[in-house]
Amino acid sequence: MIIVMKPTATKDNLANVVKKLETLGLRAHLSEGEEVTIVGVIGDKKTIANLEMNMMDGVEKTVRITEKYKMVSRNFHPQNTIIKVGDVEIGGDELVVMAGPCSVESLEQIRETAKAVKDAGAKFLRGGAYKPRTSPYDFQGMGEEGLKIMRQAADENGLKVITEVVDREDIPMFEEYTDVIQVGARNMQNFQMLKALGKSNKPVLLKRGLSATISEWLNAAEYIMSGGNEQVMFCERGIRTFETFTRNTLDLSAIAAIKELSHLPIIADPSHGTGRWQMVQPMARAAVAAGCDGLIIEVHPNPEVALSDGDQSLKPKNFAKLMKDLDAIAKIMGRKI
Amino acid sequence: MIIVMKPTATKDNLANVVKKLETLGLRAHLSEGEEVTIVGVIGDKKTIANLEMNMMDGVEKTVRITEKYKMVSRNFHPQNTIIKVGDVEIGGDELVVMAGPCSVESLEQIRETAKAVKDAGAKFLRGGAYKPRTSPYDFQGMGEEGLKIMRQAADENGLKVITEVVDREDIPMFEEYTDVIQVGARNMQNFQMLKALGKSNKPVLLKRGLSATISEWLNAAEYIMSGGNEQVMFCERGIRTFETFTRNTLDLSAIAAIKELSHLPIIADPSHGTGRWQMVQPMARAAVAAGCDGLIIEVHPNPEVALSDGDQSLKPKNFAKLMKDLDAIAKIMGRKI
Amino acid sequence: MIIVMKPTATKDNLANVVKKLETLGLRAHLSEGEEVTIVGVIGDKKTIANLEMNMMDGVEKTVRITEKYKMVSRNFHPQNTIIKVGDVEIGGDELVVMAGPCSVESLEQIRETAKAVKDAGAKFLRGGAYKPRTSPYDFQGMGEEGLKIMRQAADENGLKVITEVVDREDIPMFEEYTDVIQVGARNMQNFQMLKALGKSNKPVLLKRGLSATISEWLNAAEYIMSGGNEQVMFCERGIRTFETFTRNTLDLSAIAAIKELSHLPIIADPSHGTGRWQMVQPMARAAVAAGCDGLIIEVHPNPEVALSDGDQSLKPKNFAKLMKDLDAIAKIMGRKI
Amino acid sequence: MIIVMKPTATKDNLANVVKKLETLGLRAHLSEGEEVTIVGVIGDKKTIANLEMNMMDGVEKTVRITEKYKMVSRNFHPQNTIIKVGDVEIGGDELVVMAGPCSVESLEQIRETAKAVKDAGAKFLRGGAYKPRTSPYDFQGMGEEGLKIMRQAADENGLKVITEVVDREDIPMFEEYTDVIQVGARNMQNFQMLKALGKSNKPVLLKRGLSATISEWLNAAEYIMSGGNEQVMFCERGIRTFETFTRNTLDLSAIAAIKELSHLPIIADPSHGTGRWQMVQPMARAAVAAGCDGLIIEVHPNPEVALSDGDQSLKPKNFAKLMKDLDAIAKIMGRKI
Repeated sequence: MIIVMKPTATKDNLANVVKKLETLGLRAHLSEGEEVTIVGVIGDKKTIANLEMNMMDGVEKTVRITEKYKMVSRNFHPQNTIIKVGDVEIGGDELVVMAGPCSVESLEQIRETAKAVKDAGAKFLRGGAYKPRTSPYDFQGMGEEGLKIMRQAADENGLKVITEVVDREDIPMFEEYTDVIQVGARNMQNFQMLKALGKSNKPVLLKRGLSATISEWLNAAEYIMSGGNEQVMFCERGIRTFETFTRNTLDLSAIAAIKELSHLPIIADPSHGTGRWQMVQPMARAAVAAGCDGLIIEVHPNPEVALSDGDQSLKPKNFAKLMKDLDAIAKIMGRKI
Repeated sequence: MIIVMKPTATKDNLANVVKKLETLGLRAHLSEGEEVTIVGVIGDKKTIANLEMNMMDGVEKTVRITEKYKMVSRNFHPQNTIIKVGDVEIGGDELVVMAGPCSVESLEQIRETAKAVKDAGAKFLRGGAYKPRTSPYDFQGMGEEGLKIMRQAADENGLKVITEVVDREDIPMFEEYTDVIQVGARNMQNFQMLKALGKSNKPVLLKRGLSATISEWLNAAEYIMSGGNEQVMFCERGIRTFETFTRNTLDLSAIAAIKELSHLPIIADPSHGTGRWQMVQPMARAAVAAGCDGLIIEVHPNPEVALSDGDQSLKPKNFAKLMKDLDAIAKIMGRKI
Repeated sequence: MIIVMKPTATKDNLANVVKKLETLGLRAHLSEGEEVTIVGVIGDKKTIANLEMNMMDGVEKTVRITEKYKMVSRNFHPQNTIIKVGDVEIGGDELVVMAGPCSVESLEQIRETAKAVKDAGAKFLRGGAYKPRTSPYDFQGMGEEGLKIMRQAADENGLKVITEVVDREDIPMFEEYTDVIQVGARNMQNFQMLKALGKSNKPVLLKRGLSATISEWLNAAEYIMSGGNEQVMFCERGIRTFETFTRNTLDLSAIAAIKELSHLPIIADPSHGTGRWQMVQPMARAAVAAGCDGLIIEVHPNPEVALSDGDQSLKPKNFAKLMKDLDAIAKIMGRKI
Repeated sequence: MIIVMKPTATKDNLANVVKKLETLGLRAHLSEGEEVTIVGVIGDKKTIANLEMNMMDGVEKTVRITEKYKMVSRNFHPQNTIIKVGDVEIGGDELVVMAGPCSVESLEQIRETAKAVKDAGAKFLRGGAYKPRTSPYDFQGMGEEGLKIMRQAADENGLKVITEVVDREDIPMFEEYTDVIQVGARNMQNFQMLKALGKSNKPVLLKRGLSATISEWLNAAEYIMSGGNEQVMFCERGIRTFETFTRNTLDLSAIAAIKELSHLPIIADPSHGTGRWQMVQPMARAAVAAGCDGLIIEVHPNPEVALSDGDQSLKPKNFAKLMKDLDAIAKIMGRKI
């Protein structure tokens, strides 16, 4: 941490700052500039993490220079992490596509979708059985029955399952039915859930919060990793901006940023990220060109009657067409679908 | 809902839209303008709430014209709701002040604070025993022991207790120790927790999410009310903006907006809302002038050594001075402290 | 400036950084922490202002610790600046209210408004003759004729005039008709206009850009002051946020922030800041309680037929009522209207 | 426009709304729902554009259903517009790359850069001679001398010139030296400049404002087109978000949105869009995959000593490498560099 003193700070102000640091077992390293004096704080990382100095007389501001996360950081783990789910590898040469409906609605619907996405090259079946909805009057999902039929449809088609958990207590049930557990945007900073997932043996896909910074996202992943579960992957699903034409603004620069700052894989979600099926195709292509490790895409056999998010779902035919485009761009990126 | 057709939409496109609506038991009301045709959708509110039409050919966009929330709306409950906590009334003539440290740290600290804020006129003791922190390496709170000593300090000084719950399973424990249960900004859309609080007999203070719209906030409150608990109050605690000088941007216009849209009380939190103790005083005054029903303010006997958020805590002396200012403005607003 | 080196930076990386600084006539002050080395840069402020180091090998990031503005800063000018416009003082004991229609529409309209706002206690007549409008098909203002009749109506009623300039070339004409020249939000960073106003002898009211930070706003004022015109006042008029219920989000914390960082006066605009006449009253009260030096409020004798922004205009009767409320709060703040 | 009445609106309220519309020569089309009545407004587009109804008793809110722009809209001009600059076509099969330094600094620098970018396949030389800078103490550009030497360097290498104008009065001078005139983000809503460019015979590249919505951006282009200049192209250069790791957030979904809503070409600027040279490569690739018509990229022979934005400039070697990647992706998109 750097403490910037005010131009009007007195010697006593400075002495008090140094004294407080020393009392806490930290060291102060002074640097006198032409206008202001700055104090570098050196010592135990955890003590510094909890240090607050702005209320002391003569202090202009404090600046944190190191991030609090460590296990997720590429600085401390330079090689890419590859997460294995059976014979599928996420974060390696493969571009992994996860596809399926927003909500699981019936065995027939999920079976039909599973077959279609498998035929087009997807490796995972996605679908929501527990839905976090803005209004209590919206469809809240099929619950455990949804998990069961998704597992069945996936098994029949040789697919893995990824689905979102919305309650910490449900984690054991999810471990039974799914291969990857998804944490939704609204739960990115549900720290009790993150801690519980740190004890799970299932890989976790951590969606970015609606207005989360990259640093907050990395710290959220640190909660899971520091709990003992090192199989974490990120998912960029669009951030909130002023734009109303799209549902969210898919931030593809987050892919490049995560690749620079962390060794963990990152998946892109162009369906939630745009909220418009017309934009899924260009944004999916762009995400692959930006370097993502995989995609999660909404596909529904009949979007006109979907119980949620039909507006952003591809029909199987369009999905199959998209997969061909992605394959071509993946090759340029040195990857295969 | 209004469906706006494209200028290029064909008669068949329009016929298909009408047909889909009729299939769902809804009625279509056509209005042909100079350039475009619009379709008003009339019928069952819940069906409309789950309706998606953007993926249909010829549809330009859809516009929702009614909000999904109902119980929280002033349209359906014109009179102000007053929440009684023992002899304290929130939402009535009284301006209720809740004060205390960010984190409960020790019996001595909480006792000293409780006495000071009581002497200055506060009615509630606030303090965190379970802390949602961005990093797993930050202080996470004292837990149940913290709840116990906060209850003790409050009782010794004739204060009520308000404190934040971070895990749905802890609600029964909180009901034992506290008078009002607080839902933090990061849990505003933790729908499982909101549903559980809908079954509680304790009043709930619902903080606004970091980038939540007013509509999302009202819908979150609707989760609690529709579960059966009608004792809900809002708390504006600052939204995320581009500004970095302050920790958050306290949105006082939310007070006027909530007063217009809802009958429930609203509290302002100028401490988290600014993150700078120097700004607590002007923003607290402004919040009262904007029409809030109460304030929640951080007070710490010794902010320099606080385990969290010392930068935004007032010393007891400054808090006492602030209370006098607030009293004067409250009188102009026709209220008393 | 502080340069933070990567944990993996080599000695050569560090040596190159130091060498580049020395080549530019700057000095490097090294501070070796437990994980990273940081380099404090000392020397000529202007050289540092233009310094970029992030592209050098081994550099993690750079952090600017001093702001570039100087003349607007309270650090270098501790006393409040008072701007005199005839017998009116802005920034002193007086709470100055500026009122009038969004657009000047006719002599009759502006005369009727001028009389009404004067009677209620306003000191300035506001009104737009040149309007910056999002669409080329919206009403663009009456032009010079509007300035003339606004001047006439103001003079007849003993009021000063404030109005917005939208073109640098019009400044001499504005100097003829107005007492204070307003720079609108969309021109806050129209640097050519700011430079030209630096040569004007008229006071300038500088509105905050739609998504400007406080620092950018202060730097924009520095353009005017460094050009030679020291009569600058700020105007908070709402920032863009995600909220759609209000037109903008009036950021009253900016008042407290500007008061802390600068010696210049600040005015609040609750009309544009909310876009809803119902919210003007509570937000105007709150702005005074937050410590603003004045208010600029839209008043229209007949808002239902206004050519622009009728939705946010008060009727004269409501304005007169508001002025009484403001007077009461101003007294508590030690001010008079 | 749709007017939504309150559930509590009276018959008189509704009658007054209808009467006001009829007075203005508009027609009202009523639609009574289960809870509320909505009023469709039909008639002259310009009258509706300036209509405000929210202040009338009984009105809940108004919703605009058609955009105000027309000439820029794909609805009224389905085919892509191709802008010809000599033998270069923007918006056609070609992917046009514009490259060069942030600021023109010397003849030597711009010559060296021009040769390098030409060799790598660029068609335009970019560079700033007039720089809009946040602080008055930052380097403001070489002025007309900069334009001259940029023209010279471009001509020597068979390149076109694109550069930013910051003052309306300078347009004639820019017409002399440049092939495409750039409007910067801070001037996107400098409507006087847009009107003046509407009279120019040079193509205009219109950068998106820092927090502009897509609709505002399209309306800004409409100012230029409605003035008579139909050669307008958009440039996505990153929007302001909460993220601080990058300078801006490059919004590639804007490419897909503009392609859907407008017939005009769109260029991407990954240099300003990220502010980090390390991220230019992945984001440039992604922009091409998203469907942009061209790229504008900062290249500097020696970024370590650049007078502005060295942190985001590529060295010629890296630029040449990037061009090969882009070529491969362009082919998949059915385009050539």
